[in-house]
Amino acid sequence: VNEGRRAPVAFGVDIGGTKVLGVAVDHTDAVVGEARVGTPASAADPAGTVAGAAAAVADAVAEVVAALGHEAGAGADPASPVGVGVPGMLDRDGVLRFSPNLRGAVGADMRALVAARLPLSELLVENDANCAAVAEHRSGAARGADDAVVVTLGTGIGGGLIGAGRVVVGAHGFAGEIGHMLVDPSGPPCPCGRRGCWERFASGGGLGRLAREAAGAGRLGDVVTLAGGDPELVWGEHVTQAALSGDAGSLEVMDELAWWVALGLANLTAVLDVERFVIAGGLAEAGEILLGPTRRAFAELVEGSGARPRVEIVRAAYGERAGAAGAAMAARDGGLW
Amino acid sequence: VNEGRRAPVAFGVDIGGTKVLGVAVDHTDAVVGEARVGTPASAADPAGTVAGAAAAVADAVAEVVAALGHEAGAGADPASPVGVGVPGMLDRDGVLRFSPNLRGAVGADMRALVAARLPLSELLVENDANCAAVAEHRSGAARGADDAVVVTLGTGIGGGLIGAGRVVVGAHGFAGEIGHMLVDPSGPPCPCGRRGCWERFASGGGLGRLAREAAGAGRLGDVVTLAGGDPELVWGEHVTQAALSGDAGSLEVMDELAWWVALGLANLTAVLDVERFVIAGGLAEAGEILLGPTRRAFAELVEGSGARPRVEIVRAAYGERAGAAGAAMAARDGGLW
Repeated sequence: VNEGRRAPVAFGVDIGGTKVLGVAVDHTDAVVGEARVGTPASAADPAGTVAGAAAAVADAVAEVVAALGHEAGAGADPASPVGVGVPGMLDRDGVLRFSPNLRGAVGADMRALVAARLPLSELLVENDANCAAVAEHRSGAARGADDAVVVTLGTGIGGGLIGAGRVVVGAHGFAGEIGHMLVDPSGPPCPCGRRGCWERFASGGGLGRLAREAAGAGRLGDVVTLAGGDPELVWGEHVTQAALSGDAGSLEVMDELAWWVALGLANLTAVLDVERFVIAGGLAEAGEILLGPTRRAFAELVEGSGARPRVEIVRAAYGERAGAAGAAMAARDGGLW
Repeated sequence: VNEGRRAPVAFGVDIGGTKVLGVAVDHTDAVVGEARVGTPASAADPAGTVAGAAAAVADAVAEVVAALGHEAGAGADPASPVGVGVPGMLDRDGVLRFSPNLRGAVGADMRALVAARLPLSELLVENDANCAAVAEHRSGAARGADDAVVVTLGTGIGGGLIGAGRVVVGAHGFAGEIGHMLVDPSGPPCPCGRRGCWERFASGGGLGRLAREAAGAGRLGDVVTLAGGDPELVWGEHVTQAALSGDAGSLEVMDELAWWVALGLANLTAVLDVERFVIAGGLAEAGEILLGPTRRAFAELVEGSGARPRVEIVRAAYGERAGAAGAAMAARDGGLW
């Protein structure tokens, strides 16, 4: 083995709500290649056929893997292991059982569909958040923390749990659906069919709602202008951008968001005695303007705050590539641990 | 070894808010002896000295162990292992770090204090809910369920987590504080210093509050009479008794309680993918009038209900002795697993 060559040894693909992102990793867990395509529109469409939606998603995965192999050129083994991270509850046979973000494909055997398109590869298909936890725990920001949670704050909230140094998968492989802890029974409805789930408050979608409330109350004048003059057109991204530029009203909205983020982290700490939270996903891009107030709110919200050793809240190392990179590592190493 | 002799091989003591309960277990995990004393009043008194309260609690533990040994007579080895379950966050050195129910003793090294009084015994001191989980998982209602939670619904709520077949202790031994998940930010204040903890709703204390609300609204006529005519004097026990006799208003209150119990179980299922909940503690005495509506509410409240294998919700086998019995088993076997 030529240690300096940095040849890809595995490919990982993360199926997201808007894009299908692939990476190649080498034997040191470094990302040495990347490819992406848009997520097929049928994936989120509950009105289409499951077979059609699932096939379109599997096609997209195969397309990304082909692009990664092409990019790697002669350095890639066509039989390289491939890991695929899927957003939702995947049972141990690889069937997608529940997925608000991939609802068109619910019921499909994702493992078989991808395997049919990549007959040469050793294939691993797992929940996306568990894959992200693998990457961060092995070689990212959760390294050395054997009781950690990787929290992906995106459109919704995903969770990958590390307990006693291993990925916690639960009885059927569904563990880590942390975004669907109910935290306010009178809260807004959730696509999952209930009300007041944590991800209604502490995600990108939650930020948008907090932002529109603040805009409607006249607290976000400059941001409304930025968004074209209509408070209803204010999105989370506008607020994050404005907060990064120091806009006071936007910083207040980020503080509100941080309070809700901290509430869920406090609940997880009560249940699991977590030593480190690793924040991933789109909202992690906000960096310290979110993490700083989250740490302060967490200190107030966690049970037994003064009695506990400090719980770390840090930003993910692999960023938006954590799911894909972890899928590749797990495929290369033959499993989630 | 004489298999038929049923000699006690270990003693276990559970320090509760009202009583210190001890049991002797034999090599088959059967309970073969019992003793109890009242919890010293100083244990809950934040105004007394820590040393005094902790010494009084340790004295009570030693008194119970002596009574168990006396009861067992010549059949007991004076050096039998002793396990002690403590209500609260105990760090890995045995120091009580946080305990709403034993607040007078917070800061004390409980392990050292008990060890000084039982110099001959092999001693194990652990969180009470973790001990209960050991008993139920090894030989009780959680047997065979490797992802289970033992939920103790008493004055508050305690939790013992089993994950992949082992007790989940977390980073510092504090895991399982499930009663302090925040489930309603506008909920009633909790002795822990925050608002809207799950145990404000789904415990014996929560039942009392729901009952007084119902009594104040005139929905519990017979129960108010039973309680002496004053709605403010209605307690959870009155409602449980009346519900067991078929009182319609009381059954409605039990349904409300069940909804809150189910909400927390749903949250734990989302996070941990639990296959079985074992309900222990005083409220478990209500049996099916609580567990039936809890199962129905759970089916509505859990994420992805239709897609998941059924989650079992059953009553504890060791009842109020689970903590003491599990402490004895763990002491006998040299640890929580």
